[in-house]
Amino acid sequence: MAEIFVGIDLGGTNIKIGCFDSNLNLLTETSVPTLVENGASDIVDRIGQTVESLLGQYGLALSEIAAAGIGTPGVVDVENGIVLNAPNLKFNDTPLRQMIRDRLGCPVVLENDANVTCWGEHVAGAGKGAQDMILITLGTGVGGGIISNGELVHGYANAGAEIGHMIVQPGGRLCGCGQKGCVEAYSSASSTARRAIEALQENAEDSTLQQVLKENGTVTCEDVYDHLAKGDDLARQITDTTAEYLALLCVSLLHVAGPERILFYGGMIAAGDLLLEPIKKYFRQHIWTLQHEEIELCFAELGTHAGIIGNAALATHRLEKGQLT
Amino acid sequence: MAEIFVGIDLGGTNIKIGCFDSNLNLLTETSVPTLVENGASDIVDRIGQTVESLLGQYGLALSEIAAAGIGTPGVVDVENGIVLNAPNLKFNDTPLRQMIRDRLGCPVVLENDANVTCWGEHVAGAGKGAQDMILITLGTGVGGGIISNGELVHGYANAGAEIGHMIVQPGGRLCGCGQKGCVEAYSSASSTARRAIEALQENAEDSTLQQVLKENGTVTCEDVYDHLAKGDDLARQITDTTAEYLALLCVSLLHVAGPERILFYGGMIAAGDLLLEPIKKYFRQHIWTLQHEEIELCFAELGTHAGIIGNAALATHRLEKGQLT
Repeated sequence: MAEIFVGIDLGGTNIKIGCFDSNLNLLTETSVPTLVENGASDIVDRIGQTVESLLGQYGLALSEIAAAGIGTPGVVDVENGIVLNAPNLKFNDTPLRQMIRDRLGCPVVLENDANVTCWGEHVAGAGKGAQDMILITLGTGVGGGIISNGELVHGYANAGAEIGHMIVQPGGRLCGCGQKGCVEAYSSASSTARRAIEALQENAEDSTLQQVLKENGTVTCEDVYDHLAKGDDLARQITDTTAEYLALLCVSLLHVAGPERILFYGGMIAAGDLLLEPIKKYFRQHIWTLQHEEIELCFAELGTHAGIIGNAALATHRLEKGQLT
Repeated sequence: MAEIFVGIDLGGTNIKIGCFDSNLNLLTETSVPTLVENGASDIVDRIGQTVESLLGQYGLALSEIAAAGIGTPGVVDVENGIVLNAPNLKFNDTPLRQMIRDRLGCPVVLENDANVTCWGEHVAGAGKGAQDMILITLGTGVGGGIISNGELVHGYANAGAEIGHMIVQPGGRLCGCGQKGCVEAYSSASSTARRAIEALQENAEDSTLQQVLKENGTVTCEDVYDHLAKGDDLARQITDTTAEYLALLCVSLLHVAGPERILFYGGMIAAGDLLLEPIKKYFRQHIWTLQHEEIELCFAELGTHAGIIGNAALATHRLEKGQLT
């Protein structure tokens, strides 16, 4: 009998599914549309059909699945396997773990997608070998996952690993969460773009980004890094702030969780060294002189692939630990 | 055969030693002077003699010890059982775990004292039942311990749980560690006293603390809280800052580790509600409105007793997990 592990990365637009052997070698993968408007039962059934079809290529049935992992955006009650609130999926108190378990007939682990990405990088990406590591996702918001002593940190009532809401500037910019001075209010892709737009509207007459704002009616984070590459001074100021607050975040994270590596993940890392080098510079500037830290700041490696492998790898891990039934 | 667990709390002045049964009931305890100047071998031998004498009261020999735990101040390499640097003990690269193991003839766990205190409160104090908790020590510095998923967080190269060096005010007061704006630079007992003295020297003519400074040539943190109790306005301002930065620290800690409880420990907690209530007030003010947090901010319960029970409990825990040989 084959021992198949299935990784399901459920997003608002697409569902990525991969089938792996017990050594986490990818056998086959595919992507199908989520069709959120059809509701949870339809999504679960589409996942079931897709997995059946993928396994069918190998002459395998659902009964060959040892375990499956599914990751979703939103607020997840990991312990009880429930998606409490995921606006992108229109899920509310959805008992997704049980639904997938019923459809696939195997033990299932349900996890928040940022945690899954972190686990994927831990198992097969830039976090390989690190028993203590952190992944920071830079997108519309700032999120992430934390691994401590080789296990994901969820915290009591899943309150942990909300990295974007660590306060880096007391009394600072208002964050969507209601706090002031969260790192998310400065260093997410959207906050970086928003700070650029505010500066363009207030002054910065000489910035080459004025033309972008005029033509497109807005400025994206990508625009800002593009103009940084071309030497625009406003873009440099804006991205310096992005980097400095991320560096301050890393200093504080180091002093809490003591990660061996901190990985950055998400659309913003397309900026490459224009993003990473200033973070490293400010980290060296703000970190203590008491001792030399061996922490590594780097980019994640697996891209969106981290989702399927992370989910499958979590399923193998939890099964091994007797935490899946 | 009895199964005895020994907890050894090694400080710069005294060594506290307790003998426990396998249910962690205290059988007997004592305290002997450390006599740092006599060196590590002498200290280890005094520990051995004291344990022999304690067990002798019960007609027991060292061979009845199942395991022992020892906690020390300073920088500890937990994995290799070495005290890297402990100025209070004049220890440098001292292989203390092996030395105690040789003397007592049993498996030994060596741990940093703040972590031990955290573990003690976790097992038998205010942190009982919490699989995710944090203990913050308020003394000359700000330190602490973190428990995540029921295990102490050490981090890579023991870099974790240096809570006092989380940055709460970028570009703020210079900390002894070389960083700017560490919570330790504002909210430790000595920083609280130092900020009061600075304010008294600069202005604050009306403060009743002026008299203390005049008479004693200095002001202690205890003085500041005493005068807060008497309604002094400067004392209120100074302790408000102490509390607000501790609250900001708790907000950020919540978003990283997701503790069910955060415990405060150390000399400063003698101030009681004068310390705790403002921390709670500022925490409610700074925490997000996104959801209601169930986190509890409270005081540790065991006092200095946490050391011996924490050490003994760590020894039982590691032995059960097969991590002690």
